[in-house]
Amino acid sequence: MPDIFMFEKPIGMRDTLPDLFRLKESVRSRMAKETKLYGYRFLDTPSLEFYETVGQVSAIKDQQLFKLLDKEGHSLVLRPDMTSPIARVASSHLLKEGNPLRMAYSANVFRAQEKEGGRLAEFEQFGVEMIGDKTLSADAEVLALLTSVLQAAGLPHYHITVGHIAFVQEMLLHYGGNEEQAGMMRRFLFEKNYVGYREYVMELDLPENSRQILKKLPELKGNAEVLDQALEMMEHGVGTAALYELKTLASMLKKAGINGHLSFDLSLVSHMDYYTGILFEVLGSHIGFPLGNGGRYNELYRNFGHDAPATGFGLRLDRIIEAIGEIDAEEQPLCIIYHEAQQSAAMKKAAALRAEGHAVVTQNIAGIVELDTFTNNFTNIVYMLDSDGWEAGS
Amino acid sequence: MPDIFMFEKPIGMRDTLPDLFRLKESVRSRMAKETKLYGYRFLDTPSLEFYETVGQVSAIKDQQLFKLLDKEGHSLVLRPDMTSPIARVASSHLLKEGNPLRMAYSANVFRAQEKEGGRLAEFEQFGVEMIGDKTLSADAEVLALLTSVLQAAGLPHYHITVGHIAFVQEMLLHYGGNEEQAGMMRRFLFEKNYVGYREYVMELDLPENSRQILKKLPELKGNAEVLDQALEMMEHGVGTAALYELKTLASMLKKAGINGHLSFDLSLVSHMDYYTGILFEVLGSHIGFPLGNGGRYNELYRNFGHDAPATGFGLRLDRIIEAIGEIDAEEQPLCIIYHEAQQSAAMKKAAALRAEGHAVVTQNIAGIVELDTFTNNFTNIVYMLDSDGWEAGS
Repeated sequence: MPDIFMFEKPIGMRDTLPDLFRLKESVRSRMAKETKLYGYRFLDTPSLEFYETVGQVSAIKDQQLFKLLDKEGHSLVLRPDMTSPIARVASSHLLKEGNPLRMAYSANVFRAQEKEGGRLAEFEQFGVEMIGDKTLSADAEVLALLTSVLQAAGLPHYHITVGHIAFVQEMLLHYGGNEEQAGMMRRFLFEKNYVGYREYVMELDLPENSRQILKKLPELKGNAEVLDQALEMMEHGVGTAALYELKTLASMLKKAGINGHLSFDLSLVSHMDYYTGILFEVLGSHIGFPLGNGGRYNELYRNFGHDAPATGFGLRLDRIIEAIGEIDAEEQPLCIIYHEAQQSAAMKKAAALRAEGHAVVTQNIAGIVELDTFTNNFTNIVYMLDSDGWEAGS
Repeated sequence: MPDIFMFEKPIGMRDTLPDLFRLKESVRSRMAKETKLYGYRFLDTPSLEFYETVGQVSAIKDQQLFKLLDKEGHSLVLRPDMTSPIARVASSHLLKEGNPLRMAYSANVFRAQEKEGGRLAEFEQFGVEMIGDKTLSADAEVLALLTSVLQAAGLPHYHITVGHIAFVQEMLLHYGGNEEQAGMMRRFLFEKNYVGYREYVMELDLPENSRQILKKLPELKGNAEVLDQALEMMEHGVGTAALYELKTLASMLKKAGINGHLSFDLSLVSHMDYYTGILFEVLGSHIGFPLGNGGRYNELYRNFGHDAPATGFGLRLDRIIEAIGEIDAEEQPLCIIYHEAQQSAAMKKAAALRAEGHAVVTQNIAGIVELDTFTNNFTNIVYMLDSDGWEAGS
């Protein structure tokens, strides 16, 4: 009966053992505390949603969805993100007169994996949605909250790069000739394959001037000066509105003193189709993948019958934990090892210590299989084995 | 495109809106704090498990499992409980030399529902597993922890009834004639259908003495005296070992002063097949369903290649919340409504207040659709609309 298969888990599924659980709990709690200080309210939604409601609306590719059928034959999905379930909830319960709504979540999401390659099929996403506010102030607020949350998480290094999807779209379409070629370039940029991007651009049958401008796109990175640089480079009107939005945002953030960990990257694009304006990505220093991303999405709510502009971010808790990589030592519980005759004394002593906030394990010595290995788990042990009660331990 | 279906959720699935989220978080956190004081360590496991590994071993009926196929054609299940996933983890990672191990969890579990009848298909279970300790002291510890956790949750009323599965089994088999009749009686007892139980017993072709004793089984409820009453009633040896275990347990709990919310019910059985000894049920006062249950299960670990006795409990957080039914008023965030010219002043003021631990919403007035309804959400509002900065609000 016991068989090695008994200990296996599905592809991409991980256990969270106690040390990691404690680290996650501590980081999540610090991030949540900061989020609540901004007046965002946490909510949760079911793990399972109708495919027609949330699965199709979600920005996650269809082949990455976990699908199943319910007893009545409806297609269900394990939620692939929280943005679309929150849009469902907000649309049916929370959006009143379209006024701004500040929501937050910390929840597991699911992405089917083809094979075992270290990618998680279930992971916790921590994020916020600022719904119903069309102003740039809302984008600035979300970025301010993001830096506060990353700071609170205790990340040693992090960096936020900000771009604008409308700028990239307009520029690629204007200089790239057609939507197909613009789409190819966008894919290279999404993969951050800048060598491939340049090679592709140089092979295109385009005016030399267009090629030179397209070639420079991945270099438009840095502080707010790149926005002026881009404005000068572009032909009249191309991407101008987007660049001015970014300039205003830059000024808002600078005035509020939250430009420290932030730069611009005008070639930034996303795998998410739904961004419609400013978008951004969070990078840690030693991690190959982004810690999270976010941006403005003004179209999603139309799927739920509302014309609500929105902006927000989502962070991957697993990657943040990996970037932090360490945890303060846990306070070890005291362990009282007792003989059954001393049990009530041991339980009462433990209750008194717990009432003072100390963690105490009580253990009948008859329940221990191997005393040496058991006591190795504790640094502070008291034995109550005789009729006198206390006996100081190892 | 927008269509009423867009707002629907699968059968038995519920959203957790902010007020309920906050109540759950607060109750869970108090329960977890108490559990940690007993030296139990929290862990988590994936939502999806192999059907062959966890699905078949679980005590939950097959038709209540959510099943799906992964990309390689393996049968997966959404975990129906946490006891069997923890057995998988403990068996592969944590059980060392078979020594006692104290684990805790607070996690969502899944039970497929046939139709919409108010039963949840996903709910949070809070529980502990005390693995590897065969002594009655372990059962006493789990019951002590259970009372501490229920107390910490803030339940106005709760009651724990304790029974012994071996007693019921032996008695029903000895007096009931055969396993089939014993099984029928067990089902009536599980449903707490005592009228049906008695009618069934009276119709059985059994000696009058057997029928009379079987009829009295549901009356064997109350304080520790019912254990002596039962000992006197039984023929020599029937259920004796189980009754003596209960007597020892009763004495342990009384000595430790934790017998206040506790009584015995010798007719207690469970829908779970895996209990092997003492078992118990937690009842609230105004709730039709038990708040949770638990007991000793010494056989489960054999499925994972270990001979580890174990005991534990699982509580339904949703039912505990329902039994508590109220929540302390939330501290309302201050809301600063500003004109864009005042944005940096508003953001800095908010940052200073947040650093002191106050929650502050900052809102550009241009982002508000309907001012009156927006301000209705806040009791404490400050307007920063002119160049002088502050202006005390409504």
